[in-house]
This record gives sequence, C-alpha cells and structure tokens, in this order.
Amino acid sequence: MHIILLAVQSLDGFITQHDLPGAGFASAEDQAHFKEALRTCDCSVMGAETYRTSRDVIRSNLTAARLRIVITRAPERHAADGVPGALEFTAAEPEAVAADLRGRGLRRCALLGGGAINAAFVAGNLVDELWLTIEPRLFGGGTPLLREAVDARLTLRSCHPLNPDTLLLKYAFRRD
Amino acid sequence: MHIILLAVQSLDGFITQHDLPGAGFASAEDQAHFKEALRTCDCSVMGAETYRTSRDVIRSNLTAARLRIVITRAPERHAADGVPGALEFTAAEPEAVAADLRGRGLRRCALLGGGAINAAFVAGNLVDELWLTIEPRLFGGGTPLLREAVDARLTLRSCHPLNPDTLLLKYAFRRD
Repeated sequence: MHIILLAVQSLDGFITQHDLPGAGFASAEDQAHFKEALRTCDCSVMGAETYRTSRDVIRSNLTAARLRIVITRAPERHAADGVPGALEFTAAEPEAVAADLRGRGLRRCALLGGGAINAAFVAGNLVDELWLTIEPRLFGGGTPLLREAVDARLTLRSCHPLNPDTLLLKYAFRRD
Repeated sequence: MHIILLAVQSLDGFITQHDLPGAGFASAEDQAHFKEALRTCDCSVMGAETYRTSRDVIRSNLTAARLRIVITRAPERHAADGVPGALEFTAAEPEAVAADLRGRGLRRCALLGGGAINAAFVAGNLVDELWLTIEPRLFGGGTPLLREAVDARLTLRSCHPLNPDTLLLKYAFRRD
C-alpha cells in the first residue's frame, strides 16, 4: 500500500495559520487539487483534531469508495460517528493502522495530518510520498507539518504551479 | 535600500537540523548560490548566534565591499572583533539598523538570520524579498525560519532547481 502525506503549508512549514484550526489560508486552487488527489485514494488517515475541524464536511461526504480512519486516544468517544468501512476510529499505532489497511486490500492512502500523526507516520518510515502545497505566506507560528523531530531525506519528483504564487511539490521518501 | 532575506531550510521550515548550529545540511549548490547572492550585496545583517557559528569564516573574508552588521544585546562583548565599515556590532532595533544602512548610502542588504532577527525584520515590514532554498529534508525540529508569529503575504517571482532535489524560490513581500 502506498501512503501519500498530503498537506498545504506556509513557506515556513505551518499547516495552520497561528491558532486558527483548519487550512483556511489555502488557495482555491489548492483546495481543488486536494479534492482531486483524495479522489485517487481508497483510504485516508487523520488525527482526532483534524477530524473535529472537518467533521461536518467528512460526514456529509462519506462513501464506501474511501475508508476514513481517525486515530484518537479515545475511539469510544466517537462511536456514534462510526460507519464501518467508511469512517472508523482507532487508537492503534501507525504501523498497525497501515498493516490493517494493507490487510483489507486497500492500495492508496492519503495521510492528512495533523502534525503529530504526520510525524508518527514519517518516523515509522511508513510514508512513500509527500505532496506539499506551498502557499506564499509566512506565519512564524501555528501547527507544524511534523510535531516531533525526524530526519527524512526525500527526492523531488515534480514542481508545478497551482496558481501564479502557489507551488505543488511532489517528493518521494528515500529508503537508503 | 533593498533587503533580501536569504535562507536555506528543510521542507518543513527549519534553518538548522535539530540542535546542530549552522546549515551543514545545505547542498553544495546552495552554498555556491549563497556566496554568489552575497556578492551582489553591499551589506548584510545577522544575529549574534549566526555570527558565532560562522565567526572564523566571516573574519577571514572581511572586505570593505560588504559591511557586516551583527545585532546583539551586548555589542561591547564583541568589541575586539569590530572593524569599522566591515564588521560592526549593534544593539539597535531593526528599524534603526535599516535606517543607518540607508543613511550610509548602502543599497542592497542580505538578511542572514537566525530566526529571531528574521522575524523582527519581517514583523517590522522591512524585508523586500525572500530567497529561499528548500532542501529535500524533513527535520520536525530545529531553528525555525521565523522565531515569532507574523502574517506576511508574498508573491512568487521565480522557482528554479539548484540541483535535481533542491529548489531556489524567490518571493517579493506584498505591501498591500
């Protein structure tokens, strides 16, 4: 199974603008790209805070074509939201989550943040690609792309503009 | 006077790799670009920690063609290193530093970090351009490009590869 970390950030690496939840700073072109990229995935993984921020949108767009996994310390608290095969909650570790998705025959997973979940998957060497939208902003604070220290090397696969000021960079994680 | 923030960072916005001082992670191509960019400037500004990290290199390359200003809380502590017109230490605020450089007839200043100095100049609306080298690394920790919250909007001027994995992005700060 292929895991793609999908994120939009400021030039200085923040996926939120200061304390504002969500990616309201993302350009319309990034939002279109994000939806398009998600459509190519048969599953996605996110943290509980990311879920809470987008809960209404997620719940009104549930489909059996893409399983959403929310990693949370308290899956039982979200039991009422669960829809087996479409929206599931788990307290499992990243390795176990990835193994479970692989075991279900899923092939392409979008990793959607936040910073703690992103870092745990990167630290576990579980991520194959990074698709990073860089908006022309500097925040100097907010939720970081990765909330814990890692040391990952990547290879640039492509760089293309989503609009005159916004770049979409695609990288592969190096395994050497 | 034109001020250019010149930096090399990881994909996630760190100008050092964790606690390692300096930009040892920078590619050879970025280092060549950095030297070339500095040669186009008649002055540069940096913080005391950045100066300490590069002190030997800076002192062995002093020239009247480029004035180096080091901003420090304790300029008197560095008095022995000072060379008027080539290497000066000051406790002045960013606005006063910029005004002084302008007053001397200087025209093009490289802002060289670290994160506190960068943020103070950006917060003061003193920076005209950002020349940002993005190395294909993720650190999840280190010295941030900007050490305090700001909210700056920029315009992408150019994007070009320094090597197959390293991008040089040039932005102008928007004044609107």
